[in-house]
Amino acid sequence: MNFKQLTEAIRRKKSFLCVGLDTDLDKLPPVIRKSENPVFEFNKRIIDATAPFSIAFKPNIAFYESQGADGWQNLQRTAEYIRKNYPGIFLIADAKRGDIGNSSEKYAATFFEKYDFDAVTVSPYMGIDSVGPFLKYPGKWVIVLALTSNKGAEDFQFIRTGRSERLFETVLKTSLAWGDKENMMFVAGATRANMFVVVREYVPDHFLLVPGVGTQGGSLEDVFRYGRNAHCGLIVNASRSIIYADGSDKFDEAARQRAEEMQLLMADLLDKAGFLENC
Amino acid sequence: MNFKQLTEAIRRKKSFLCVGLDTDLDKLPPVIRKSENPVFEFNKRIIDATAPFSIAFKPNIAFYESQGADGWQNLQRTAEYIRKNYPGIFLIADAKRGDIGNSSEKYAATFFEKYDFDAVTVSPYMGIDSVGPFLKYPGKWVIVLALTSNKGAEDFQFIRTGRSERLFETVLKTSLAWGDKENMMFVAGATRANMFVVVREYVPDHFLLVPGVGTQGGSLEDVFRYGRNAHCGLIVNASRSIIYADGSDKFDEAARQRAEEMQLLMADLLDKAGFLENC
Repeated sequence: MNFKQLTEAIRRKKSFLCVGLDTDLDKLPPVIRKSENPVFEFNKRIIDATAPFSIAFKPNIAFYESQGADGWQNLQRTAEYIRKNYPGIFLIADAKRGDIGNSSEKYAATFFEKYDFDAVTVSPYMGIDSVGPFLKYPGKWVIVLALTSNKGAEDFQFIRTGRSERLFETVLKTSLAWGDKENMMFVAGATRANMFVVVREYVPDHFLLVPGVGTQGGSLEDVFRYGRNAHCGLIVNASRSIIYADGSDKFDEAARQRAEEMQLLMADLLDKAGFLENC
Repeated sequence: MNFKQLTEAIRRKKSFLCVGLDTDLDKLPPVIRKSENPVFEFNKRIIDATAPFSIAFKPNIAFYESQGADGWQNLQRTAEYIRKNYPGIFLIADAKRGDIGNSSEKYAATFFEKYDFDAVTVSPYMGIDSVGPFLKYPGKWVIVLALTSNKGAEDFQFIRTGRSERLFETVLKTSLAWGDKENMMFVAGATRANMFVVVREYVPDHFLLVPGVGTQGGSLEDVFRYGRNAHCGLIVNASRSIIYADGSDKFDEAARQRAEEMQLLMADLLDKAGFLENC
């Protein structure tokens, strides 16, 4: 899925919502736990409920991996289900991998070849060797961690690396040379909306993947105000606030409602900013 | 396996060698490829051949993950085989994970609970949130990436973060406050042996996991000269130079020879430095 297709999907669906599939076996509703394959059953119902309001799904690999081989089978089933039933959806592996050389190549092959994801999140600490192998796949994307939404982001990402520069800025500046807006995005946390202005100074044209809206408390309006660019350029993720909106048997109906609420808010923001004029 | 046991294992086996199980299906000898379960068969023979000369094994998770659910089953079988047959061996998951909150907890649960590894490598980019959850397991270890052996390490790890400080130094200094020498180690690449002096200024007492000796060209003598501390404090990894020493049916014999050569060199270094006097 390329830049143009992604931008068109945003305009067509009037949404830049990504639903995070952080599917935790311990948090599933009782009705689902009784099924033969709880994680996949849960995902299927969440996907069906929220796909009309979303442009992307983002399985968080930590949750699948913690179930070992079974978890990886569920990840595969989930990815295949989305591909088959919602071919226009952007599929992100939130893996935060980051290795070098042939190890990095193996990670890229895992998510792009074996599971056919569109994009993978990658940590920049080891430099271009972690990011480069993901850029060798035409039509695929690497999403580099720049400014994350957690408290601990302050430990290193905000360290001064120059007179008026912080590490996340250096990451943006340096990694810009490795790819372009057609194959590279950046993670920018929504809990730091005032920082979007800074991020946009470095990457005015790139897509930003924005976690932190919802349970983590970031404001969608602020993200849009400070983070959008001429193409919208935002993929805003919500995970727990949608998929665990309700613990009853009607969890998918609650998820649908939450997703639709966010989509309506996004449609309003897109509309007021003139993004939908030529739809 | 705690600090004391690890130090005793080094003295007893006169070795600080870790064998990296970067088991790549594409690189296995023909005789192994024909077997029912090539990756596990290969690992088993490499483990049996090299365990007498090693104190640790380090599966590189990228290689297992790229085989999907099958790969994770092979990882599990490999970990169980080592645990059962070589209970005194230190078992490192080279996963380079790095996430936050409940995702980070899931990664810790995966490697410590499900697969019973002793240690996991973790990327520091997202700060304490990535490292903290791994420190909640008594007797387990987190190995923080500080100074890696790849060329791309220069992209960010060597950036000035102060008048006379670089990012990897800030990582060492900051993460020191999160754990201690009983639950935290650091990755320090052998291709930068002159940097060990700097690393040791920050972490004189901690173990260092050292990749880059062997195929990547680092010198074992230099690592020992500049990197050792009063307890040896080194775990030196070699992967490809041992496990792919020979592509024939006798690959394990070749691996045994390489491991023994390294162990003899290590015994000599330990002996000359007076580490074996009271064995």
